[in-house]
Amino acid sequence: MGDYLDKIFQIVEEDILPLEQDFLMNGFVHVLSQLNECRKKVKEQGLWTPYLSDEYGGMGLTPVKFAAVSELLGKTPLGHYCFNSQAPDIGNIELLKDHASDQLKSEFLLPLIAGEIRSCFGMTEPQRPGSNPTWMDTLAVRDGDDYVINGNKWFTSAADGASICVVMAVTDPEAENKYERASMFVVPVDNPGFEVVRNIPVMGDVGEDYMSHGETRLTDCRIPTTNIIGKEGEGFILAQERLGPGRIHHCMRWIGICERALALMCARASSRELSPNKFLAEEQTIQNWISESAAEIYGARLMVLDCAKKIEAHQTKGARKEISMIKFHVADVLMKVLDRAIQAHGALGMTEHTPLSFWYRHERGSRIYDGADEVHKSFVARSILKDHLD
Amino acid sequence: MGDYLDKIFQIVEEDILPLEQDFLMNGFVHVLSQLNECRKKVKEQGLWTPYLSDEYGGMGLTPVKFAAVSELLGKTPLGHYCFNSQAPDIGNIELLKDHASDQLKSEFLLPLIAGEIRSCFGMTEPQRPGSNPTWMDTLAVRDGDDYVINGNKWFTSAADGASICVVMAVTDPEAENKYERASMFVVPVDNPGFEVVRNIPVMGDVGEDYMSHGETRLTDCRIPTTNIIGKEGEGFILAQERLGPGRIHHCMRWIGICERALALMCARASSRELSPNKFLAEEQTIQNWISESAAEIYGARLMVLDCAKKIEAHQTKGARKEISMIKFHVADVLMKVLDRAIQAHGALGMTEHTPLSFWYRHERGSRIYDGADEVHKSFVARSILKDHLD
Amino acid sequence: MGDYLDKIFQIVEEDILPLEQDFLMNGFVHVLSQLNECRKKVKEQGLWTPYLSDEYGGMGLTPVKFAAVSELLGKTPLGHYCFNSQAPDIGNIELLKDHASDQLKSEFLLPLIAGEIRSCFGMTEPQRPGSNPTWMDTLAVRDGDDYVINGNKWFTSAADGASICVVMAVTDPEAENKYERASMFVVPVDNPGFEVVRNIPVMGDVGEDYMSHGETRLTDCRIPTTNIIGKEGEGFILAQERLGPGRIHHCMRWIGICERALALMCARASSRELSPNKFLAEEQTIQNWISESAAEIYGARLMVLDCAKKIEAHQTKGARKEISMIKFHVADVLMKVLDRAIQAHGALGMTEHTPLSFWYRHERGSRIYDGADEVHKSFVARSILKDHLD
Amino acid sequence: MGDYLDKIFQIVEEDILPLEQDFLMNGFVHVLSQLNECRKKVKEQGLWTPYLSDEYGGMGLTPVKFAAVSELLGKTPLGHYCFNSQAPDIGNIELLKDHASDQLKSEFLLPLIAGEIRSCFGMTEPQRPGSNPTWMDTLAVRDGDDYVINGNKWFTSAADGASICVVMAVTDPEAENKYERASMFVVPVDNPGFEVVRNIPVMGDVGEDYMSHGETRLTDCRIPTTNIIGKEGEGFILAQERLGPGRIHHCMRWIGICERALALMCARASSRELSPNKFLAEEQTIQNWISESAAEIYGARLMVLDCAKKIEAHQTKGARKEISMIKFHVADVLMKVLDRAIQAHGALGMTEHTPLSFWYRHERGSRIYDGADEVHKSFVARSILKDHLD
Repeated sequence: MGDYLDKIFQIVEEDILPLEQDFLMNGFVHVLSQLNECRKKVKEQGLWTPYLSDEYGGMGLTPVKFAAVSELLGKTPLGHYCFNSQAPDIGNIELLKDHASDQLKSEFLLPLIAGEIRSCFGMTEPQRPGSNPTWMDTLAVRDGDDYVINGNKWFTSAADGASICVVMAVTDPEAENKYERASMFVVPVDNPGFEVVRNIPVMGDVGEDYMSHGETRLTDCRIPTTNIIGKEGEGFILAQERLGPGRIHHCMRWIGICERALALMCARASSRELSPNKFLAEEQTIQNWISESAAEIYGARLMVLDCAKKIEAHQTKGARKEISMIKFHVADVLMKVLDRAIQAHGALGMTEHTPLSFWYRHERGSRIYDGADEVHKSFVARSILKDHLD
Repeated sequence: MGDYLDKIFQIVEEDILPLEQDFLMNGFVHVLSQLNECRKKVKEQGLWTPYLSDEYGGMGLTPVKFAAVSELLGKTPLGHYCFNSQAPDIGNIELLKDHASDQLKSEFLLPLIAGEIRSCFGMTEPQRPGSNPTWMDTLAVRDGDDYVINGNKWFTSAADGASICVVMAVTDPEAENKYERASMFVVPVDNPGFEVVRNIPVMGDVGEDYMSHGETRLTDCRIPTTNIIGKEGEGFILAQERLGPGRIHHCMRWIGICERALALMCARASSRELSPNKFLAEEQTIQNWISESAAEIYGARLMVLDCAKKIEAHQTKGARKEISMIKFHVADVLMKVLDRAIQAHGALGMTEHTPLSFWYRHERGSRIYDGADEVHKSFVARSILKDHLD
Repeated sequence: MGDYLDKIFQIVEEDILPLEQDFLMNGFVHVLSQLNECRKKVKEQGLWTPYLSDEYGGMGLTPVKFAAVSELLGKTPLGHYCFNSQAPDIGNIELLKDHASDQLKSEFLLPLIAGEIRSCFGMTEPQRPGSNPTWMDTLAVRDGDDYVINGNKWFTSAADGASICVVMAVTDPEAENKYERASMFVVPVDNPGFEVVRNIPVMGDVGEDYMSHGETRLTDCRIPTTNIIGKEGEGFILAQERLGPGRIHHCMRWIGICERALALMCARASSRELSPNKFLAEEQTIQNWISESAAEIYGARLMVLDCAKKIEAHQTKGARKEISMIKFHVADVLMKVLDRAIQAHGALGMTEHTPLSFWYRHERGSRIYDGADEVHKSFVARSILKDHLD
Repeated sequence: MGDYLDKIFQIVEEDILPLEQDFLMNGFVHVLSQLNECRKKVKEQGLWTPYLSDEYGGMGLTPVKFAAVSELLGKTPLGHYCFNSQAPDIGNIELLKDHASDQLKSEFLLPLIAGEIRSCFGMTEPQRPGSNPTWMDTLAVRDGDDYVINGNKWFTSAADGASICVVMAVTDPEAENKYERASMFVVPVDNPGFEVVRNIPVMGDVGEDYMSHGETRLTDCRIPTTNIIGKEGEGFILAQERLGPGRIHHCMRWIGICERALALMCARASSRELSPNKFLAEEQTIQNWISESAAEIYGARLMVLDCAKKIEAHQTKGARKEISMIKFHVADVLMKVLDRAIQAHGALGMTEHTPLSFWYRHERGSRIYDGADEVHKSFVARSILKDHLD
């Protein structure tokens, strides 16, 4: 079992990377059947949902060990999907595992873990700031044994083709404690009143299937009260619990992207001639980019691993400051490294002949999704100032 | 005539901006007939090809005056097209005007000026660095009264739908002076042997018609010797002459983009509530972005105008250092301002509901096209060091 | 008279620059008698206090013209002093000229203009934020025909050796309009109760005479009511009026510093061998520094000139946004250029063999004095947002 | 022994920090007798030269453990001196321990370890680039049983008051392998022909005693051949071996400086009122500075520790890439954190009332000494590109 990283590396190199160009040029659905073949192989080799414990059919990897896996998977935009480790499913799986009723688990969690269905997460609303999770317009009103939900969500990632949506809605708008106003629900997408309005064009790309960001609308959408996750009023706390690991999962993946981008930059520098036999790699500017990127990735990677270690020791709760620090810091490193790698490729960097353009566009969101930089920076500063005063 | 800026402003505001959303969501062709209506109106109002002299039906605007116009047009991705001031046509028009034979002029220049046809410019090659314009693989071999051209070009912007391509090809690979190896030709796209292989996906966007970047191939493409622009061996010098004004034209346009991005950021800050009645504009971070952007744009704009003034006084040749300085400096300001404006919009900034995403993607090229930052920085430094030693 | 810039250039080159090394190594007092010789020469050539009108013996230069002079003088830390254009005297002279009584003028302004005495300006207090000019502890209480002042000031620049101090003190702590609480006074330094406690060590340098920053204390310091500048309650408005031009004067000077730093960087790059016959100037990194610095200075200089033009047209009041923009923007350019120039000099850049170290240390204050960056950025943003909403 | 960190912390807090203000205001010699008291106490508590093995009277701390100590000592400019862990002595001690003859050891190493004498290191020359250690003018010519050395060195740190200087000089200028041209020698400073010409004013500070940087001259300076360290021609390799750990020692210390600067920034933010009861800490800009600094320090610290771990496992040689990465990366973090901390203090940050000004000035050298940023970046890039091609 010690060699699982080798096996994963091999699958990434031999099975997934060869699909990348096709995906970048022709879209996700174009490679979907091949990806499903990969998924089958991953399962056969016992590498499926590696972050889950044995009891759920996973590899039982600790956060630190999963970080190394995620780094490998992150080297291509298709990696995590093949190992059923992709957001938002990974977050929903953890959430349902820890907080759903047995009924919800058997109905939705098990097929999610098995990769038979996909899920999405409906929290962000177009009219309300993501930075303020206590201010939402979506309402869930109790009516007998049902909740009736009305509202409008967007950036419901991967809604296209998903079977369920985890929806956050206000259940008690008047609750004095504003952190107890909302609750979380499992809403099957075929439920009347639930609608994926459109896939939002994001950075020029409307996407499809798993690789998309939906706008969804709930219109008198009626679900049984048993579809609640946790208890009424726990929506905010569940969101926090879900987003903490979600953030470090993103960071782990970004390290993989950074490493791939650096490798691409090095390959380009070593092979591109500026004039006959004079290589790009000899220019001091690109040497600066390579060494600055390498140093920043070196630090970022250690931060992610250290944060994972803290989570192992103290739960997500005990590592909130570190999670927020890596969230904005690693995103910043990511965007800088991608930018340099593109510049090193010249016109080629603008095309889909490398994954750099895909990441440059889609990971611009890294500084926005799961808490904008500004929110995390303010949180970290306030924590430190509080520590300082203690 | 003093009020032409008002008229242009009005057309941008009332006729072009209303098409922007449709363009961003549905593509260039979707709004083409409406754009052609705009072009008709522009002509009727005597505002067509404003940078051209009266004799060619233009407004005879000096570079400084055209800068102010271009700033207005740059506020939307559709502005320049409506005034027949879009690259690469503007550069080709200037080139043909100054260097083409009368025959080429009457055959190609006049319809270009009239906006009846479009053109493209084939210089960059996938296998050769754009930073080294003396190293090209495309060959034009003289054969009787013809040249026979073979080669592969890409980032032949707007090739899709163009009628002619201005092609740079090596005519004397052995010329001792490497700056005299290449020549420039007018190649009609319907010429046998000329082929637009594909529209290259650029930043995820394959584009269409004018808004595209083609890969082109010339296979035994035979054109009459009279299709040469200037003389044999003048390709490099013509490229320099064409690119100088081309670069300042880009900078003028970028100022317009920057101003629009700043206006969007201000509008967002003033209207987005973080919590009831607490506006984004009250946050110090966004205040920093607004003021830093404003100061950078203030300086960048003055630089572009000063550079235009120098061109008026000393021709492009006498302003080469300034042109290179604004090329990399204003591109840098542009990307910083766009980045801040996107962050200020949060998730919305990632969508096509504003033009920020379009510019963030396509103007990433601003630091690459018409000479990468690195090339211009090196040129500027060597000029300054030379001045210093004199 | 058209050749005054040449004359000034010549004096800077031939008379002042040769004193620079001695000043940097041995301090201001060491070169004081030679500086006074320079001042005499400047007077003789009719170049004295060039910013003042003819009636006061100046050259009557407009802000735009004075900018060009100040740029020349700024090339060495000793330039402005030789032309009686140094802060804080220049600000005090303008202030007294416009707002002092005839008696104060004849007693203090005329000798100041003549360069027979020096002055200082006591506004900043150690216990109160400079960013909030409405919150001060220094109190001036009216007592018959006197005011009795008590308080503690610091960064009273050039207090050491000054004859008068312009002191800002609260006269009406309860005034409803907080901008009307303070007043301004001329306090002769030999007045009982006025004390220069010490010269503050600033960036490791305790300084002396004109080149120093004092801490001052007023203890029951009694001055006649006629020593007030303007009227009671006008302190804030006078400070604003004094600081506006003061800020652009700093910016003008910083342009001179930037240009000298760039020249030093170029000279170093052209003469320093990394190995025999391989010069620093050939390295791409230093080429980047040179070209980025040149571009930034190009823009900064145009901004300062444009702002001076706006002041000519609309008074300081009509250019407040521009003044704040150049204050933080040019200071930022200044520090970046100095930093690169030092790095280009290696160990030498850390020594006093060039003025870079002096400026690196003392101009770190450029981002703090006369309004910290943060204050100006916030002001600019609020102005722009206000314009936007109008 | 497990509690040695507590003991060290206590000495720093209770014995050394109280001397800091006096040192900053009045200079090193002013606190020297008190520092010697501290040194005595450190010895008594068995904490002396903690990086040395037991056999030499040290604590036998591994690099990783010493990193934690150095971080504590770095919190004040006086820390390392009190624990006999200050550069350049620490580097000279390691060098002599590993490569000096028994005679040199007993004569010079033992008193150095005991703190009875101090040493300096003469490598950098004013006329030759520090970036090229194979190009030196100082010559050592063998003459019988002596070497006769002639040359000029500067930035011979702490030469003032040192007893010996480790001098690098060319012994074989014609050696084909340029890395074998130089050798290293122990030169007692009282040797005829050795002269400390002056203490160089560095960032305005001429310094004194240990806190100084000397210019030294060797004029027919005759030393016995037995004063050579290692063998003839090993100068370069010994310099490399000496500088590797030297660089990580600097980085360890910089982490301590960063942490102190962050603590000072937090203390300032929490105590400074912008207006009554409105604290600096509530401003988003300073919150950004605090959180960005914290994240950068978090990463930098982990990098230093990881690099120390690599040195433990693979010697300095096996960690050269990592050492170069932390050298430029941590220096960059250091300067950014110091800059923000100064800005947060406003005018106070410019004074000697905090150690920020001292570090801002003297640690500007961190990007220059022991290899300028540019040298390390180029080395790292070439290593990575080589790995990439393998």
